[in-house]
Amino acid sequence: MTSINTLSIDAAGLSAASTAYQARQAIRRGDWVKHTSGLAARNAQGNIAILPAALASDFLRFCQRNPKPCPLLAVSEPGDPMLPTLGQDVDIRTDVPLYRVWKKGVMVDELSDITPLWRADLVTFVLGCSFSFEHALIEGGIDLRHVKEGKNVAMYKTNIQTVAAGPFHGPMVVSMRPMSAANAIRAVQITARVPAVHGAPVHLGDPALIGISDINKPDFGDAVDILPGELPVFWACGVTPQAVVMAVEPEFCITHAPGYMLITDLLNSDLSLA
Amino acid sequence: MTSINTLSIDAAGLSAASTAYQARQAIRRGDWVKHTSGLAARNAQGNIAILPAALASDFLRFCQRNPKPCPLLAVSEPGDPMLPTLGQDVDIRTDVPLYRVWKKGVMVDELSDITPLWRADLVTFVLGCSFSFEHALIEGGIDLRHVKEGKNVAMYKTNIQTVAAGPFHGPMVVSMRPMSAANAIRAVQITARVPAVHGAPVHLGDPALIGISDINKPDFGDAVDILPGELPVFWACGVTPQAVVMAVEPEFCITHAPGYMLITDLLNSDLSLA
Repeated sequence: MTSINTLSIDAAGLSAASTAYQARQAIRRGDWVKHTSGLAARNAQGNIAILPAALASDFLRFCQRNPKPCPLLAVSEPGDPMLPTLGQDVDIRTDVPLYRVWKKGVMVDELSDITPLWRADLVTFVLGCSFSFEHALIEGGIDLRHVKEGKNVAMYKTNIQTVAAGPFHGPMVVSMRPMSAANAIRAVQITARVPAVHGAPVHLGDPALIGISDINKPDFGDAVDILPGELPVFWACGVTPQAVVMAVEPEFCITHAPGYMLITDLLNSDLSLA
Repeated sequence: MTSINTLSIDAAGLSAASTAYQARQAIRRGDWVKHTSGLAARNAQGNIAILPAALASDFLRFCQRNPKPCPLLAVSEPGDPMLPTLGQDVDIRTDVPLYRVWKKGVMVDELSDITPLWRADLVTFVLGCSFSFEHALIEGGIDLRHVKEGKNVAMYKTNIQTVAAGPFHGPMVVSMRPMSAANAIRAVQITARVPAVHGAPVHLGDPALIGISDINKPDFGDAVDILPGELPVFWACGVTPQAVVMAVEPEFCITHAPGYMLITDLLNSDLSLA
């Protein structure tokens, strides 16, 4: 886990909101162009999609219809780069460590500041991130193999179809975490309480039942071993909306770079129902 | 489902508590010496164990240590046959349709009224019954195969050990319900909210992992098919405390006859956390 102390911020001496604010300020200054895993660990992080207003209402309906893969934390006013519901002085043009710029589904640039590209018709979508529910699982005493092994989580395309809205449609992408049956049961309970970050699993057990032909060959991320006595447990994944957006090949679109998330003032515990 | 109308009680016109009271009164009069499945269906039913006070404190600790198989709804004062926390005028000597009397672990009698056997040292334990959580599952839209097929639920001895207290110890008995992965995930969420009736499952998937060698040969109840794409889901079962009590061979003990339960004024929904 990357220590926030390398930013000269003493997390122990700061409130979570203050830690998150200072982390965003460091990112804004260009002092932190790295992934955000473990940064301000008590705070919720967000996946970012910035779309032209012409597509935004369709995409908003898509998220509303597919809350497990697309759990909305915030939607900006058109043209407004600020996200006041997510924290103090959150400016989406500067507060993500690394952005990707897309034209017609092709990545054309990676930048740490998109201020020059901002337009009056852009709408920002912030979606819950699995870091938050992994935090809840680990706090609940459930070890996650990919975390222990320093790997990216294993992700798979499935035959589970999302509910379409306008041009947006496509299969659900899931992440997989192997665990014992007892932990799988606990994990259902824990993650059901965080619907703002994917919620309860969408499947467990036989991968073939959701169209995964080889569990050892994830479509994204890294394979992890499934030990004897373990079940694979599958959650809807934030890669789903990215894949769905890219399939539409919007004329212009900005996302975060994978793992380089927006740190919000929301606590992970704020996202929990109980 | 047996209709309560055969008791000349119009369930539709009565509150749940009043329905339960009238059902108990009919049982007390000897007008209902039948199993109680479906009777006063909104109300929680209870498993009964009546033990001499000399064993009662050990058994109470056993229940406290094993809440999933032994979810306590009420414990009486020693010698007091009344259970005021469970409803109006609940008299454990008369309000269960059929009792079994045991001496040193051997059943010596079946009676519909135990008033002549009552002693000043007897303590009544009322334990939550799976009828309540099956009600929650069915209300949640999850079909239960054994209910549809009019069978008793399949139950198995496992290698999961209970936590001992005094002389009480032994393996956990579980009930099994086959369901799709999606329903298994929903069922974990639903039953986790009813800890007073066994709570979340204790296992799902491979039966061998909890010491069940042949899923088609339950130790109690009836076998049901597990269809392709389904998982067996296992819950702690109220047969566990009965087996544990019998193993101790108490000099004297009274239980309900299987399926002939105490109907309480508690609603099934009263037992739910949310």
